[in-house]
Amino acid sequence: MNGIEQDQYYMELAIEEAEKAAAKGEVPIGAVIVHDGKVIARAHNLRETTQNAVTHAELLVIQEACSQLGSWRLENTHLYVTLEPCPMCAGAILQSRIPRVIYGARDAKAGSVDSLYRLLNDDRFNHQCDVKENVLADECGQLLTNFFRALRENKKKKRKQL
Amino acid sequence: MNGIEQDQYYMELAIEEAEKAAAKGEVPIGAVIVHDGKVIARAHNLRETTQNAVTHAELLVIQEACSQLGSWRLENTHLYVTLEPCPMCAGAILQSRIPRVIYGARDAKAGSVDSLYRLLNDDRFNHQCDVKENVLADECGQLLTNFFRALRENKKKKRKQL
Repeated sequence: MNGIEQDQYYMELAIEEAEKAAAKGEVPIGAVIVHDGKVIARAHNLRETTQNAVTHAELLVIQEACSQLGSWRLENTHLYVTLEPCPMCAGAILQSRIPRVIYGARDAKAGSVDSLYRLLNDDRFNHQCDVKENVLADECGQLLTNFFRALRENKKKKRKQL
Repeated sequence: MNGIEQDQYYMELAIEEAEKAAAKGEVPIGAVIVHDGKVIARAHNLRETTQNAVTHAELLVIQEACSQLGSWRLENTHLYVTLEPCPMCAGAILQSRIPRVIYGARDAKAGSVDSLYRLLNDDRFNHQCDVKENVLADECGQLLTNFFRALRENKKKKRKQL
């Protein structure tokens, strides 16, 4: 596989994670971390299930990777995530020193890698990342669009039943 | 107690947490969350102990408060922390909808509430906070100064012994 195919391959795995989230009624966002070419952590958003505000896919996958490597420094890792990280998750990426981040769709409402802020490329912090966006962005975005459409339709149905 | 005394009282508890961190060789930062006037969570930085990049005092105290209240929405809470939050922790404060944040000392290197960014007061996000800084800031800052001074002196001693 060349670099582009590799990025698409790992993003497919992140999309599988996002699909697991959707199946649980969670906003479908998924992430994986690859270390020296091996997937060491997979996670999906679990905010509603856990009722824990910090259980975004990225926070969970970072914690699993720290546990796997026995270190808070995630050197030689790549993080794949279906949606542009929010400030919390971008901050966690900086804290864990992940050198490369690949994401699918942009998030115009809270994205803090390119949309609202560029937190991963601010040289005032003690870490910066190599960032690649737009990998399978249509599939990643479509999952979210479908999820929120179904949510709205369910709400409409319920209102009609009242 | 009036409002100022109350804020100092709870910041003292956050300082006690920071002291617990220092005793473990952790960068001394502590936090507490108060809900309707009652302390529901206390935590201190545990990054070295856990080797988990996201175990800052704020992330830990937010998770404990979510667990205590059974909800990711930390309504009617105040978060007290000895140091200005980094982007990850400021982001977690937004995610958990904490309405009021009180901190001690500014962090010129990574502070993202007043110093480098003003993440808690950006009306493009779906939540903003009431922020108060400079509560027992000298004590909070002194803990960090003492910690890093002792660390440097220990390193010097070790070098001399080689």
